[in-house]
Amino acid sequence: MAKDKKKKTPRPRAETPRGFSDTFGSDVTERREMLERICEVYHHYGFDPLESPAVETLDALGKYLPDIDRPHEGVFAWQDDDDAWLALRYDLTAPLARVVAQHRLALPNPYRRYAVGPVWRNEKPGPGRFRQFYQCDADTVGTPTVAADAEICMMLADAFDAVGIARDDVIIRINNRKVLNGVMETIGLHDAANPEAQAHTRGIVLRAIDKLDRLGEDGVRALLGAGRKDESGDYTKGAELSPEQTGIIMGFVAARRDTGAATCARLRELVAASPTGIEGVDELETIAELLEAQGYQSRAVIDPSVVRGLAYYTGPVYEAELTFRITGEDGQHRQFGSVAGGGRYDDLVKRFTGQAVPATGISIGVDRLLAALREIGRAGRGEAAGPVVILTMDREQMAAYQTMCAELRNNGIRSEVFLGGGNMGKQLKYADKRASPIAVIEGADERAQGVVTLKDLALGARLAAEIETHAEWKAQPAQITVPRAGLVAEVRRMLARAEG
Amino acid sequence: MAKDKKKKTPRPRAETPRGFSDTFGSDVTERREMLERICEVYHHYGFDPLESPAVETLDALGKYLPDIDRPHEGVFAWQDDDDAWLALRYDLTAPLARVVAQHRLALPNPYRRYAVGPVWRNEKPGPGRFRQFYQCDADTVGTPTVAADAEICMMLADAFDAVGIARDDVIIRINNRKVLNGVMETIGLHDAANPEAQAHTRGIVLRAIDKLDRLGEDGVRALLGAGRKDESGDYTKGAELSPEQTGIIMGFVAARRDTGAATCARLRELVAASPTGIEGVDELETIAELLEAQGYQSRAVIDPSVVRGLAYYTGPVYEAELTFRITGEDGQHRQFGSVAGGGRYDDLVKRFTGQAVPATGISIGVDRLLAALREIGRAGRGEAAGPVVILTMDREQMAAYQTMCAELRNNGIRSEVFLGGGNMGKQLKYADKRASPIAVIEGADERAQGVVTLKDLALGARLAAEIETHAEWKAQPAQITVPRAGLVAEVRRMLARAEG
Repeated sequence: MAKDKKKKTPRPRAETPRGFSDTFGSDVTERREMLERICEVYHHYGFDPLESPAVETLDALGKYLPDIDRPHEGVFAWQDDDDAWLALRYDLTAPLARVVAQHRLALPNPYRRYAVGPVWRNEKPGPGRFRQFYQCDADTVGTPTVAADAEICMMLADAFDAVGIARDDVIIRINNRKVLNGVMETIGLHDAANPEAQAHTRGIVLRAIDKLDRLGEDGVRALLGAGRKDESGDYTKGAELSPEQTGIIMGFVAARRDTGAATCARLRELVAASPTGIEGVDELETIAELLEAQGYQSRAVIDPSVVRGLAYYTGPVYEAELTFRITGEDGQHRQFGSVAGGGRYDDLVKRFTGQAVPATGISIGVDRLLAALREIGRAGRGEAAGPVVILTMDREQMAAYQTMCAELRNNGIRSEVFLGGGNMGKQLKYADKRASPIAVIEGADERAQGVVTLKDLALGARLAAEIETHAEWKAQPAQITVPRAGLVAEVRRMLARAEG
Repeated sequence: MAKDKKKKTPRPRAETPRGFSDTFGSDVTERREMLERICEVYHHYGFDPLESPAVETLDALGKYLPDIDRPHEGVFAWQDDDDAWLALRYDLTAPLARVVAQHRLALPNPYRRYAVGPVWRNEKPGPGRFRQFYQCDADTVGTPTVAADAEICMMLADAFDAVGIARDDVIIRINNRKVLNGVMETIGLHDAANPEAQAHTRGIVLRAIDKLDRLGEDGVRALLGAGRKDESGDYTKGAELSPEQTGIIMGFVAARRDTGAATCARLRELVAASPTGIEGVDELETIAELLEAQGYQSRAVIDPSVVRGLAYYTGPVYEAELTFRITGEDGQHRQFGSVAGGGRYDDLVKRFTGQAVPATGISIGVDRLLAALREIGRAGRGEAAGPVVILTMDREQMAAYQTMCAELRNNGIRSEVFLGGGNMGKQLKYADKRASPIAVIEGADERAQGVVTLKDLALGARLAAEIETHAEWKAQPAQITVPRAGLVAEVRRMLARAEG
C-alpha cells in the first residue's frame, strides 16, 4: 500500500530552489542588528522609511540589469490572470522611481527616504551566486543640488562608524560622470548635440576604467586600445582608441591628488575645452568643500578612477571601499573592497511622468558588509546568546519546570524547558547544540532536598579544551547545587562570570 | 519628435500592481516596532530566528490554500529556466516544514523557531484585499507533548502584553481537533478505521461551527441541517444532520464552563464513547493545568467553539481574540475579533520524509494586530517624530547650515537641512509636511547679529487651532531668537516642552 501511495503522489524534495538559501539563528540576528544601526543613522539624518512591495509590474521596473541573455533580462517574471506581467524587484531604486511618480503630490519635496529588503535576480545559479539578497538604500529625490550628494556620502561614513568599522578602514571615493563626459568630449567620443553617438565605445571605456583595481594600469590601457587576452586565453575586444586618446583617459583616471581642491584643479586642466566637464568639476569642488567643512575629507575623497558600471548615472557617482586586507580562498592577501555604491540619476522618474526629477542615492551591499563585520569580529554578540535550558527529569513535574523557567525569564534571562524525549545525556547534548550557557537540573533527589543543580556548560566547554586528565575534570566546579529559592541569583552569577 | 518617441516606447504606468501597496514613514516604523517587541518575547522564550527565502519550489509548498478556483490554487508561480516551477510562499508554515526536512540533522530537536516576513496570495484583487501581507510565526517542531502547545499560548499572551494590549482585552481560546473527531465519531461521522470517509460532511460541519460568531446559534443549526439562505438570498447547502446529531454538535460547541477543569469534565461526558475524544480531553486537561500553574487561566481558556478552518491541524488548536469593541464602517459596534491563530499539525514534515514529525505553532495576523494597536492608541510614538528642519535662506551658506545640523544630530536630535528650492513660505510648508517640530532660520540679518531664529512649529499648529484673532496670534511666542551658540540648548528646551 505504501508503494501505491508513492505512485500517486511522489514526495516533494526538501530543498531550497537553486540559488536560494535559509538563514538561521544568529545569522539572522546579526544582519538585523547591523541594518538597525544603519537605518538609525539614516533616520537621524531626516530620511523616512519606505517599504514598497516585492512585486511590481515588469513595465514599471524597466530594463537596467546587464543580464541581457537571461530570461526577462535577469528578472523573475510571470503573467497575472489579467495577462499583465508581474515581476520581483531587482533593486530598490526602480521601485523608488515608481513610488515618486505615483505619489508625487503627497510626498514632501525633496523626498529623503531609506529602504531595506530583499531583491531578486534571475541569475544563472552557481556556487556562491544568490538569487535573493538584501539591499539597504538611502536616496534624496527632488533636488539638483550636490549638497544632497555630499550629505549622502557623509551619512554613509556615519553609518560605517555606527556598525563599528574603524575610520582608517573605509574610504568613500567620489567622481562625476559629467567630468568623464567632458574627457570623452575632449577626445571626440562624446558630442553634446548628439549624445547617443558612440555610446557603444564609451561603454567599453567605462567598463575598462571600472576594472582598474583588478587589471591594473596596463590591463586598462590594453582594453582602451586593441583589446586584451586574459589568463584563460579569452580575448576581449578593446575600444580601439588612439595612443593619444588613451593617454588622456589614463591621465584622467590618475588625476587624484592629495586634496580635493588639488584634484579638482588637475581635472579642470583636463576638461578645459568642455562646458559639461567644467560643470562637473564645479560640482566636485562644491562637494569637496562641504566634506571638508564637516571634517570628512579623509574619509570621503574625490577620485577620478571611480566610474560605476550602471548606465543611468548622470552626475556625481560614489563608491565605498573597505581597505583592510583579508586572505582570499586562494591564500592571496587582498583588500576587502567595495561594499556600497551609488550616484545621481536624474532620469529614472522621467520614464513615468515625462518630467525630469533629480535624484541621488546610495545602496549598501548588505551581505558583503556583514561578511566584513564578521571578518573584523564586529558582528553580533557572539555565542553566549543561547538560552538557559531546564532539563525535564520527570515529565510529571512539567508545571514546576515551567515555573522555574518563568522566574528566570521574568528576571531577563533567556530560558526554556526541554520538551523533547530522552535521558539526561541526550538533553545535555541538546543544550550544547543550543549553545546554552547553563543547564538546570531538578530530579527526584534534588526535589526532596529542596535544591537544584546548575551545570555551567560554557565553563565545561572551556575546561574540556584545557584539562588533560579525568581526575582534574572531576575536580572542576562546572556544576553546583543551590537551594531552589536561590535559582535566579545563582544563574545570574554564573552568567556574569561567563561574560566577565 | 516628442510624439515619435512616445510611439516607440510608451511610458510605463506609475502604479503598484493590483492588490499591492506601498507603506510610508511611521506606518513602517510602527509595524517594525511592534514586530520587534513580539520577537523579543519569542527570543526570550528560547525560540531562534529563521529566515527562509520568499521563493520555494511549488512542490515544496504543497496545496493547503482553500482557493481552488484561482491560478495555482492561490499561489504566485512561474517556471524557472530548467522548467521547474517556482512560487512565492503563501505562509511561513509550509517553508518551515521544508526547512526541517532539509536540515533535520543539523537542527536541535525539538526546534523552536520564530519567523517574520511577507507572504503572498494570488487572490482575486478587490478593495481591501491585499496580495502581500506580513505574518509573524512561532513554532515548536519535534515534540508531541502538549506542554509545547501550552507554552505557545502563554508566550502569545506575553507577546500581547509586550505590545501594550491590556489583559482584559484579549482572550486565547483553545480546543482540540481530537475532541471534535470524538464528537464526530459519537454521531457516526468519523470512523478511525476509515478516516477519509465522510470527510466532505465533516468539512461542512467544521466550517459551520467556525461561523458561530458571525451567524449565531440558529445560523449554525441551519447549516448543520438542511442549509441556510443568507441576507443576499444565496443558499448554502447544509450537512443534512439529524436533529439528534445537530443537538450533540451544538452541545459540544456550548460546552465551555467557568473553569478549564469544568469544561473538560463536560467534554468527557460528550465523548465518553470515543477513545480519540478521550485522548483529546486528556490533552486539554493537561494544557488547562499548565496554564493555571503559571497564572494564565483567565487569559487562555478551553473553549470548544474554536475549530480553525485549516485542514492540516491534528490536535490542539488555538485562536486569540481582542474583545474590546470598535465601530465598524457600517456604524455598528462589534468586537475587534481574531488576530492570531494556530495549532498542532503533525503531518506537514512527513510529506517530505515519510516520517511523522509532531509540530505546533502560532501565526499572528500582523496587519490586523497593528490596526488594533492604532485603534487603542498604542502604536508608534506619535507625530513628534519629524526632523528639525534648518531652512536654506542663502545657498552660499550650505556648509554653515550643515554644521548646525551636525551639531543637533551629534546631540541626538533628528535634523536635516532643507535642500529644495523656494522661498521661506515654501520651506515652512515643507517642514509642516514633514511634521517637523522646529524650523531653524539664519538669514543675513541673523548672521550679522550672531543669532538664529527658531520657529516652534508644533506650538504654532496648536496655537493656530486655539487662537481666534490675528492680534493674539502675533503676540504668541511661537518664534524665538537666540545666540547662535545657544542653538542646541534652545532646540532641546523646545522639544522637551513639546513632549511635556
